[in-house]
Amino acid sequence: MNPPDPELLSINTATLGEKRNLRREIDALRRHGIRGIAPWRDEVAELGAKDAARMIRDNGLAVTGFVRSGFFPAADRTGRQAAIDDNRRAIDDAATLEAKCLVIVAGGLPKESKDLPGAREMVRDGLGEILDHARSSGVPLAIEPLHPMYCADRACVNTMRQALDLCDELAGQSGDGLGVAVDVYHVWWDPELKAQIERAGDKRLLAFHLSDWLVPTTDPLLDRGMMGDGVIDIPALRRAVEAAGYTGLIEVEIFSARNWWKRDADEVVRVVKQRFESAV
Amino acid sequence: MNPPDPELLSINTATLGEKRNLRREIDALRRHGIRGIAPWRDEVAELGAKDAARMIRDNGLAVTGFVRSGFFPAADRTGRQAAIDDNRRAIDDAATLEAKCLVIVAGGLPKESKDLPGAREMVRDGLGEILDHARSSGVPLAIEPLHPMYCADRACVNTMRQALDLCDELAGQSGDGLGVAVDVYHVWWDPELKAQIERAGDKRLLAFHLSDWLVPTTDPLLDRGMMGDGVIDIPALRRAVEAAGYTGLIEVEIFSARNWWKRDADEVVRVVKQRFESAV
Repeated sequence: MNPPDPELLSINTATLGEKRNLRREIDALRRHGIRGIAPWRDEVAELGAKDAARMIRDNGLAVTGFVRSGFFPAADRTGRQAAIDDNRRAIDDAATLEAKCLVIVAGGLPKESKDLPGAREMVRDGLGEILDHARSSGVPLAIEPLHPMYCADRACVNTMRQALDLCDELAGQSGDGLGVAVDVYHVWWDPELKAQIERAGDKRLLAFHLSDWLVPTTDPLLDRGMMGDGVIDIPALRRAVEAAGYTGLIEVEIFSARNWWKRDADEVVRVVKQRFESAV
Repeated sequence: MNPPDPELLSINTATLGEKRNLRREIDALRRHGIRGIAPWRDEVAELGAKDAARMIRDNGLAVTGFVRSGFFPAADRTGRQAAIDDNRRAIDDAATLEAKCLVIVAGGLPKESKDLPGAREMVRDGLGEILDHARSSGVPLAIEPLHPMYCADRACVNTMRQALDLCDELAGQSGDGLGVAVDVYHVWWDPELKAQIERAGDKRLLAFHLSDWLVPTTDPLLDRGMMGDGVIDIPALRRAVEAAGYTGLIEVEIFSARNWWKRDADEVVRVVKQRFESAV
């Protein structure tokens, strides 16, 4: 299998260190000729979305995803409404950034709750509340199924099947404005993965994220690997999303407290580029 | 919902500390009037299966599961054959112990391999190799789907649907001699869980294991919680397996390096009994 076109490489800014600074990150990406970026809300808010958007555009970068919104479940109506309001603001900023999608991390159980089906209903209802605003803003919502180990505290949408069922329920078969972000770290283990990628098709495949699963994994959140250093058959998954019609940029998103976050951004980007050629 | 009949409580010996010693564990269970035990292979081997079986019988204990066998994938034919031979020995010992089932932990990826579909084929083929021996020995094989976070290094069977598909493929709809062990820790997150428990039915539900998912979880392997201390709606899952026809004993299996393994066995068993009444 041929390596992907280097022009398809996008880098999620969380790959470049724990403390985000958009200006510094854009400079690093520009030094290495990278064409895509996925910025986080905190760093965009720091500059203001308009200035952030201008800076990103001026540096020839496409925004493959705005990271991130969602977190719908809450213990009471006030909390759920606050989440919806926050999601609307995220949609506005994603529109300003001309982001290919807004990444939706569903949210986990409300505090003190063990009602997982209830939390999942809150996710469905919350998405239903913001979908029209997303559509009229031209911002596709990309539901990102998170690994089941994050079910309690980050996202109770944990498989592609579940995410696509949500799309069917909320957006109908047309899928307009609602789809999924496929992050290999979260879904590589799923026996149904290829079938569900095929089911999603080009209409619903809104983003494709890369990192690798290390053995052993020393931290459930911050020990992701660089592509090629773990056990995920990344080329096979790229082949699957491409066969399903995905032609978008491919985003590298690595949280790595013990390794990559300790290195300087130039080194990390250099290695990402090499691995994009040799291990993707 | 009423608490379960206290007579249904079984304790997996790994709950009582990291270092297993069957004689000591049986004494502890007897002191507290427990009726079921799930012993591990190392401690049974230490005494010899016949002596272990006699000791267990003499103390009025039922063996809810013999822990554990499986681990089919290997890099070469010799390794795969060694796994099959080892599984046959485990079946023999399970028969001697009159175990309700032999717990099957599938195994993960072979060393240096990224071929997950291939590993899953090795699991299917390995199970196929041992099923006749298990049947003629009167030992049902209970495939235990493990949490997806163990996919790479422990078990590449990660959902109830996948385990039941394996049962269908290998044992046909009759399901004779092959079923599943439902451990709430591994499967609680699964959006399809209730449907798959129903699909399994009483024929294929061979064991039901309890612990709890703590938030936060500090170690992916050894930080399970006591029932009631985490976020799993255990009564709802008990209701589901009972509605599907399960009438067997209910096994408590808690790996807890930072908490319960630091306490003495009598205290742990006392708390298990209380929680069996209040949180199950």
